[in-house]
Amino acid sequence: MYELGVVYRNIERTPLDTAQAMASLGSATVHEAMGRVGLMKPYIRPIYSGAQIAGPAVTVLLHPGDNWMLHVVAEQIQPGDIVVAAVTAECTDGYFGDLLATSFMARGARALVIDAGVRDVKTLTEMDFPVWSRAISSKGTIKATLGSVNIPVVCAGQLVTPGDVIVADDDGVVCVPKARAAETLAAAQAREANEGAKREKLAAGVLGLDMYKMREPLAAAGLKYID
Amino acid sequence: MYELGVVYRNIERTPLDTAQAMASLGSATVHEAMGRVGLMKPYIRPIYSGAQIAGPAVTVLLHPGDNWMLHVVAEQIQPGDIVVAAVTAECTDGYFGDLLATSFMARGARALVIDAGVRDVKTLTEMDFPVWSRAISSKGTIKATLGSVNIPVVCAGQLVTPGDVIVADDDGVVCVPKARAAETLAAAQAREANEGAKREKLAAGVLGLDMYKMREPLAAAGLKYID
Amino acid sequence: MYELGVVYRNIERTPLDTAQAMASLGSATVHEAMGRVGLMKPYIRPIYSGAQIAGPAVTVLLHPGDNWMLHVVAEQIQPGDIVVAAVTAECTDGYFGDLLATSFMARGARALVIDAGVRDVKTLTEMDFPVWSRAISSKGTIKATLGSVNIPVVCAGQLVTPGDVIVADDDGVVCVPKARAAETLAAAQAREANEGAKREKLAAGVLGLDMYKMREPLAAAGLKYID
Amino acid sequence: MYELGVVYRNIERTPLDTAQAMASLGSATVHEAMGRVGLMKPYIRPIYSGAQIAGPAVTVLLHPGDNWMLHVVAEQIQPGDIVVAAVTAECTDGYFGDLLATSFMARGARALVIDAGVRDVKTLTEMDFPVWSRAISSKGTIKATLGSVNIPVVCAGQLVTPGDVIVADDDGVVCVPKARAAETLAAAQAREANEGAKREKLAAGVLGLDMYKMREPLAAAGLKYID
Amino acid sequence: MYELGVVYRNIERTPLDTAQAMASLGSATVHEAMGRVGLMKPYIRPIYSGAQIAGPAVTVLLHPGDNWMLHVVAEQIQPGDIVVAAVTAECTDGYFGDLLATSFMARGARALVIDAGVRDVKTLTEMDFPVWSRAISSKGTIKATLGSVNIPVVCAGQLVTPGDVIVADDDGVVCVPKARAAETLAAAQAREANEGAKREKLAAGVLGLDMYKMREPLAAAGLKYID
Amino acid sequence: MYELGVVYRNIERTPLDTAQAMASLGSATVHEAMGRVGLMKPYIRPIYSGAQIAGPAVTVLLHPGDNWMLHVVAEQIQPGDIVVAAVTAECTDGYFGDLLATSFMARGARALVIDAGVRDVKTLTEMDFPVWSRAISSKGTIKATLGSVNIPVVCAGQLVTPGDVIVADDDGVVCVPKARAAETLAAAQAREANEGAKREKLAAGVLGLDMYKMREPLAAAGLKYID
Repeated sequence: MYELGVVYRNIERTPLDTAQAMASLGSATVHEAMGRVGLMKPYIRPIYSGAQIAGPAVTVLLHPGDNWMLHVVAEQIQPGDIVVAAVTAECTDGYFGDLLATSFMARGARALVIDAGVRDVKTLTEMDFPVWSRAISSKGTIKATLGSVNIPVVCAGQLVTPGDVIVADDDGVVCVPKARAAETLAAAQAREANEGAKREKLAAGVLGLDMYKMREPLAAAGLKYID
Repeated sequence: MYELGVVYRNIERTPLDTAQAMASLGSATVHEAMGRVGLMKPYIRPIYSGAQIAGPAVTVLLHPGDNWMLHVVAEQIQPGDIVVAAVTAECTDGYFGDLLATSFMARGARALVIDAGVRDVKTLTEMDFPVWSRAISSKGTIKATLGSVNIPVVCAGQLVTPGDVIVADDDGVVCVPKARAAETLAAAQAREANEGAKREKLAAGVLGLDMYKMREPLAAAGLKYID
Repeated sequence: MYELGVVYRNIERTPLDTAQAMASLGSATVHEAMGRVGLMKPYIRPIYSGAQIAGPAVTVLLHPGDNWMLHVVAEQIQPGDIVVAAVTAECTDGYFGDLLATSFMARGARALVIDAGVRDVKTLTEMDFPVWSRAISSKGTIKATLGSVNIPVVCAGQLVTPGDVIVADDDGVVCVPKARAAETLAAAQAREANEGAKREKLAAGVLGLDMYKMREPLAAAGLKYID
Repeated sequence: MYELGVVYRNIERTPLDTAQAMASLGSATVHEAMGRVGLMKPYIRPIYSGAQIAGPAVTVLLHPGDNWMLHVVAEQIQPGDIVVAAVTAECTDGYFGDLLATSFMARGARALVIDAGVRDVKTLTEMDFPVWSRAISSKGTIKATLGSVNIPVVCAGQLVTPGDVIVADDDGVVCVPKARAAETLAAAQAREANEGAKREKLAAGVLGLDMYKMREPLAAAGLKYID
Repeated sequence: MYELGVVYRNIERTPLDTAQAMASLGSATVHEAMGRVGLMKPYIRPIYSGAQIAGPAVTVLLHPGDNWMLHVVAEQIQPGDIVVAAVTAECTDGYFGDLLATSFMARGARALVIDAGVRDVKTLTEMDFPVWSRAISSKGTIKATLGSVNIPVVCAGQLVTPGDVIVADDDGVVCVPKARAAETLAAAQAREANEGAKREKLAAGVLGLDMYKMREPLAAAGLKYID
Repeated sequence: MYELGVVYRNIERTPLDTAQAMASLGSATVHEAMGRVGLMKPYIRPIYSGAQIAGPAVTVLLHPGDNWMLHVVAEQIQPGDIVVAAVTAECTDGYFGDLLATSFMARGARALVIDAGVRDVKTLTEMDFPVWSRAISSKGTIKATLGSVNIPVVCAGQLVTPGDVIVADDDGVVCVPKARAAETLAAAQAREANEGAKREKLAAGVLGLDMYKMREPLAAAGLKYID
């Protein structure tokens, strides 16, 4: 349940270097490193391919068809932040376009993740401002009802607390709680370090069956080969 | 992001009388009383019509296709509780049937709200054990992976903290945070008290336009009548 | 494209006896009689089973999350009317509940068809006021933005002009243009008259293959029987 | 890939007593007895609650918006059969209504499972002819294109071969291959026999944690209790 | 409700220069200029990115799985036209491919908007013939049933009358009634003219809160800042 | 119904030259050549545009959230094969990423078609390993439950038998049974040969109405032109 009509100005962000170090690792590796939790639902998709970013979340709660609070959150953005926008009911309206993107970029925002629609996607692509959204729609919004800024929100099925790390790329959007950011980064880096050697072996034709020593457990589980 | 593999045994429940007093008010009135927040997504539907209940939430986090933790949560149920089950990914499997319902009822559970599927619905209906779910499915589940009990969970888009009040009926499922339970109950009762008089007037033919004094604001907004 | 902020007070309704004579024929027969056009999309479902109604449409255009105009349309209802409510964007909010139903019934409305959500469905069922909707939801609405009353609207994919006949039952909702109401009624009654004899034959074991003389065209199309 | 334009008249049905013995066991128990395979997708729902049936499948392949082959399959029905209808593309049209149901019942059909829409559901309910479908729709169909009868079909994601057993109830629809029918029946009966004792224990307050001896594996998996 | 089996040869088109002047403004600006109505549902998406077009609509009504009338509408195309295709029921079949596109281009068509599926998208992209559709599918269609050409149709939830202006780009598809085309163009151009100055200010770091003078109404609505 | 826990090592593949000859024809032409059957549902989409491939299918059956069998199927891949992966219930998890793709490529696999999710799509695109999937998701999977390899599976609504030909491109995925591969190839080539001449005529302005001699059947069906 949400607290309405409030803006928290002082949030504790995950340190920027910790947060941004997760960008190159990507959402899949970070998600694995957390034990396969923290992922937003896969209906959230990037408006263009190839962007891969990470940063601390500033959050905003919106009402259906009303983007008033996106102007309020703009003032709370610090360089490197990623804005995470939730809506109190399902809505595909185009809450965000090139003007707001210009403002967000002027404040140093790195990206927007929104559980609703976005528009001006051609211009946003040219501006290189990445957005992950549930829809693309020309439909504009009004400015009439108060939501909140920097409260915990549920975005695409995932709880996001202000200051948590958002990692987003072509595979999806992951949220890492700030209390677990350092350990998650370490775990993800360890996974990554491990992958190069695996990739080489697999490329050389070694089977995962052998590399991961799966033949015995598969047999134990009863797998039968039939010629 | 969820903490996995833990069971919190001591949660602070909203007092049972406060929680249960919301049942007769219904989800729509309680939702209004909270300022139109707190509602689960409308894909959560009752397996049969007519049940109208309220009580404190005990929560459980499940993995897709795995109902192991439903047995763990059973032990944590106290009389009057409503079990709220979230899943780490979208799943429609039938996690819950008549055997688990028998166990839940023996512990005093009042209902189950689950962001997944349920089965044995004919028997559950005969047992008068209400379930709100996203699907009905014969598909059974395994018992292999740890989730958690009594951590905050996101169920059908709504954050539920253990001890919060769940109000569920044919219109949907609302979650009232325990810190706001008393004030919400009072506000909902006030709304309800107010409705009898309104209903009589409207039944007598008085228009909402007049009863709510809407004609002036409508004209101010520019409404034109054309004969 | 919709005209906003207007209420047409004088619409030409299909004569009530013509309209209501379609109720007992049902939506499927009427839909066939029109050449298989005029049907709303099948996501529009009745909130309870068994209601079967027909009557002239009064229409209302709503905005997402805003039910202000439902109070405006109430004044335009005449006995026997069916209110058809469209929304300018997809929305599942609960626009309509027992208070508005009380008012609609006091004005003589026969039913509501709404391309959005409805609530208080348990009470509406007890009141015997049928609603066909796309969703059931406790979520309330605000009263802030002007729509229109008695303009042509698109409801669940179907164009409805004020005064057209709405036929609704467990199978769905059909709209018959007033200009074609009389001929459609006659065609539907002819179909219906024809069905009793067919039903008797089929019950006696005559196959549709023979009754409809399908064996020859099936063979001509190349159907092969294999023993 | 489907063979078009053929009707296989002689199919090998699962013996009727074997097939029908699965009705009282229900889809969930049978599905478990098969190792959790064989279930149609859960979007297939009964048009009314409470029917619980089983019988050998006769299959029919239809084209979108065309129910011609339902008349062809009628002739192939033997008493106790369940007609399983697949469509070559997604379609929600109302392929089947009270006239076809009259014909199917005259031939001894026990039910219809159709991966498309159905209509006249009020009358079908009164006739006590159960249908499991993906939609309810007034929309009628034409009779123009050949499909096939008694070929293997994919219905709601499940391969059904003519003569297989269909088990359907409020929880869903399961298909049991005829080659595995006898063993599946035996396994399902064994499960069922086992459930009475479990239910009594659970009703007496024994926890599944103890009855199924789960405490040790849960601890081994690392479950922590926190007071 | 649709009139079937007719082709209107003489329609009144919005003047081509008025229509085409809307292309560079884009769907979002035009949609705002009309008061946020006229937009097709956002499930209609372009088959490739970057096309931005506008022109008068010629309309065609199709049946599910049947593209016969696309050949009929081809003859009615005039240079600059945009074909708008509606279907009488939901269908994702691939109605349109490279051969029809060749024919449409030979007639001078600028684009196709279709509430169904399309195929040969790789070739269409190479041909630079833009299509907005609800699906991409290899599935072909038959040529068997009459629809109509140049009647008013409902396409993706939007009423389109022949001669109306269609504006389509990466953000979606808007329909402007021909009676409102001139005023809408003027209003959209005024909006556009206004945007350059705003963009500069926002890029310079001025907040929307100040530029749009929102601080006072936000405070009046009760917004609280918490440090 | 699926056989679980088995790996068939010796399958009869469609000859590679026959299979691969279908790649340049594309899914739409092949689908037409088979009489418009054999197409997977259109929710299966390529992770990047432009790939157009064909080859014999090796199949694998997976459980929700479990990719163990993808390692088992890797060993059964022969150069030119296309892996077709089905799941026993709906799931969008990311079963397959760059490591498995490295292994599949080392074995000579040409592509993957999976009725579930995939991840590392940026890397897969750089590797030029095409995947057709129902979702993109960072969510990883476990390795716990046996499925099967090289049994007939239902993938996206389509039955695929090991050795059948898979044809996949931007328009979708078609399955050609190996018994019909040669005749389908011939029929598709004949269609294709025929298209060049048609395309030229249409480009020159000849209408399909005339080229396909449709004017008479349209008139016979009752089409009326209105000036």
